[in-house]
Amino acid sequence: MISNDTIVALATPSGAGAIAVIRISGKDAIAIASLVFQSVSGKDITRQKTHTLHLGHIVDGNKVLDQVLLSLFIGTNSYTGENTVEISCHGSTYIQQQIIQLLLRKGCRMAQPGEFTLRSFLNGKMDLSQAEAVADLIASDNEASHQIAMQQMRGGFSTEIAKLREELLNFASLIELELDFAEEDVEFADRSQFHDLLNRIEFVLKRLIDSFAVGNVIKNGIPVAIVGEPNVGKSTLLNALLNEERAIVSDIAGTTRDTIEDELVIEGIGFRFIDTAGIRETKDVVESIGIRKTFEKMEQAQVVVYLFDSTDFKTTGSQLQKEIAKIQNQFPLKPLLIIGNKADKLTETEQVELKALIPDILLISAKENLGVDELKSKLLSFVNTGALRNNETIVTNTRHYDSLLKALEEIQKVQWGLQSGISADLMAIDIRQALYYFGEITGQVTNDELLGNIFANFCIGK
Amino acid sequence: MISNDTIVALATPSGAGAIAVIRISGKDAIAIASLVFQSVSGKDITRQKTHTLHLGHIVDGNKVLDQVLLSLFIGTNSYTGENTVEISCHGSTYIQQQIIQLLLRKGCRMAQPGEFTLRSFLNGKMDLSQAEAVADLIASDNEASHQIAMQQMRGGFSTEIAKLREELLNFASLIELELDFAEEDVEFADRSQFHDLLNRIEFVLKRLIDSFAVGNVIKNGIPVAIVGEPNVGKSTLLNALLNEERAIVSDIAGTTRDTIEDELVIEGIGFRFIDTAGIRETKDVVESIGIRKTFEKMEQAQVVVYLFDSTDFKTTGSQLQKEIAKIQNQFPLKPLLIIGNKADKLTETEQVELKALIPDILLISAKENLGVDELKSKLLSFVNTGALRNNETIVTNTRHYDSLLKALEEIQKVQWGLQSGISADLMAIDIRQALYYFGEITGQVTNDELLGNIFANFCIGK
Repeated sequence: MISNDTIVALATPSGAGAIAVIRISGKDAIAIASLVFQSVSGKDITRQKTHTLHLGHIVDGNKVLDQVLLSLFIGTNSYTGENTVEISCHGSTYIQQQIIQLLLRKGCRMAQPGEFTLRSFLNGKMDLSQAEAVADLIASDNEASHQIAMQQMRGGFSTEIAKLREELLNFASLIELELDFAEEDVEFADRSQFHDLLNRIEFVLKRLIDSFAVGNVIKNGIPVAIVGEPNVGKSTLLNALLNEERAIVSDIAGTTRDTIEDELVIEGIGFRFIDTAGIRETKDVVESIGIRKTFEKMEQAQVVVYLFDSTDFKTTGSQLQKEIAKIQNQFPLKPLLIIGNKADKLTETEQVELKALIPDILLISAKENLGVDELKSKLLSFVNTGALRNNETIVTNTRHYDSLLKALEEIQKVQWGLQSGISADLMAIDIRQALYYFGEITGQVTNDELLGNIFANFCIGK
Repeated sequence: MISNDTIVALATPSGAGAIAVIRISGKDAIAIASLVFQSVSGKDITRQKTHTLHLGHIVDGNKVLDQVLLSLFIGTNSYTGENTVEISCHGSTYIQQQIIQLLLRKGCRMAQPGEFTLRSFLNGKMDLSQAEAVADLIASDNEASHQIAMQQMRGGFSTEIAKLREELLNFASLIELELDFAEEDVEFADRSQFHDLLNRIEFVLKRLIDSFAVGNVIKNGIPVAIVGEPNVGKSTLLNALLNEERAIVSDIAGTTRDTIEDELVIEGIGFRFIDTAGIRETKDVVESIGIRKTFEKMEQAQVVVYLFDSTDFKTTGSQLQKEIAKIQNQFPLKPLLIIGNKADKLTETEQVELKALIPDILLISAKENLGVDELKSKLLSFVNTGALRNNETIVTNTRHYDSLLKALEEIQKVQWGLQSGISADLMAIDIRQALYYFGEITGQVTNDELLGNIFANFCIGK
């Protein structure tokens, strides 16, 4: 998969801005750039030092395309580990295209998505899990996902895997050595130490595997469905939570017919709020479709917030109980938060009465912003953020998760083999298999198809 | 208006990409950057050379925000003419915001639109017309507008103005010197040479003023209305011109009810095609609104293309003549191209007959792509691209156009004064006024309000 050609791509977002950056990488990057770049001070860029900046013009024959700044990275000291030139040009789409087309004519080829990072991996500048973290880092949109990607890119995850792998490799070598002396029945590998190591590896693997649930939540946000009758203040609550006027707030019952999604970050964790049309029985066809949609949205959500107008509780009390029961019967395992809105309009006696009718209720006033913080911390309590707070390695990547599961399976086979006194040669096979899965994560074991799949999800220019 | 504070802004387009560039400029740019940047090799960036690149991390206390490349520009050798740092970070919006917020906390302030270029002007790195060309360059979306902006940014326009100004200034000095010796009745300034100079200046000013029509066309594109009955192939023609499936093509008469705008660049000149609903008389209310809209669009267009189905000409011939007359009467001075479509289905005899009926007709087949190139060159013939081809200075900026008009007026006053033997002191006033308008263009004469207006149209980060 390693290629000697020189690739080019726009590295900044497409569209017009003050400046754009075009990146060239490959053996001939500097030679090709020198064909189209004229330094204002007449310098020859093929004779300059690495990590230097040069002002000049991009010229196509007699035509000056732009005045640019050129960054020079020579040899292995670059992101990709090969000669790299970055051209910082004026940000018009026209200029970007003209310069890239010129470079293509001069011998570059268009980079594939993620190809710069792929080259960085192939040239040994980072391992595969670090390369994957680059894409996560670019996609990160809140503190938690950013922190995890950053830790992984800086090698946190790789270090943990590499440590396990090395220890296991030591034992594998000793056990394979035993095979060479099979007829003499010696044991180079201390079985009790090996037993301890396997337990330790199992413990770490389980922790990493468990962290995927948190990792997933952090990467994608927690979907929360807000359910309730029309006009109980769902949109007002959403706005109070989001502190912005995102949903349409209206006094006409049944205004919110479509579901609106919006995201809120509480202490670095993303929550995606899904506003629904409620579940009131009705003859209106559009409303009925709304009710079906509400149940679908509850299905997809990890948490359901049931909201009602607490000032109506004397007339609607039994109906509320019925609807809450309906949700609980439909989704017995899903966390359900029951919220009575507009509680600022209740007397204290009424509040006591209501709490007797519906235990576990949280009384709030979305309009007056009362109880909204309590609601936020209740939501946060559904997420186990311990690992995050303790700065532990968290797995967010499905591919890593799969490899960890497979590695765990192999380790458990080895444990079972050790207990039942299986022969060393059979045990060696399982250990090698576990090592294989560790290698898959860091990229010591890889193939073109796998790399193709991983880097296809990158943006072009990275 | 010159300020000593340090400004920061995102210089690349907003949104996620592989990388983003954050620009800091001002006296303390490097000092502030050094507070948040840790070089991987432990270098102190306050002690590095100008035009060097440094790999490291942006840190906020203990928290690592990103791995970045930092570009260093010390002193007057930068775009702005003051200390500048560019941070090339990973392209997530979250990271961009975090880094900018950190820099704001450390003493930067958010840059105004165009403030980097404003500082460049104020620090004498470029004159005002060059600074304005920077914005034009970023906005340029075709070869012609790009070429003009590039020429202007590189000082082409300024040089032309500066040359006139200098010659005029020489004469102004001589004439003002005469005022000091008014009682002695001497003439330091050779009146016949002065006469020649004024004619030369008048000639150049008129040429520049005339070029504004072309410049305007190049900057904004030429609007072309395509008019004709439903189902004559307007959308097919648009697609043939644009080589893409942009408009809805359908066999049902009257499909195109809304106007669709699209742009085509022919030899570097932009044409904006406006698809209309035709002008067939009808009882359908929606169609009637369409006809009114068609006339409005013709009004706004610089060229009208009247398209009809040539295979119908025997039945619709008289109606065609009536409609063509209607357009010609309404817009007698507007260039009108009469196009018979579907001509591939006519016999040669029919073609001759049709040409007899409607002279100046161009027969094409949009579907078979016949005659489309001839149409393109006819369109191009409406634009006087001579100046463009001869690489002459072209004025595209309304502000420059206004100043040139005012300068011409003053020059003509001086010419009249010279002819009628007006006194030197009155003549000197007019010359000074002409010089003033020249200075307005290059920014030698300026004020805060003017600068505010000019740079408010820039994007932030430039």
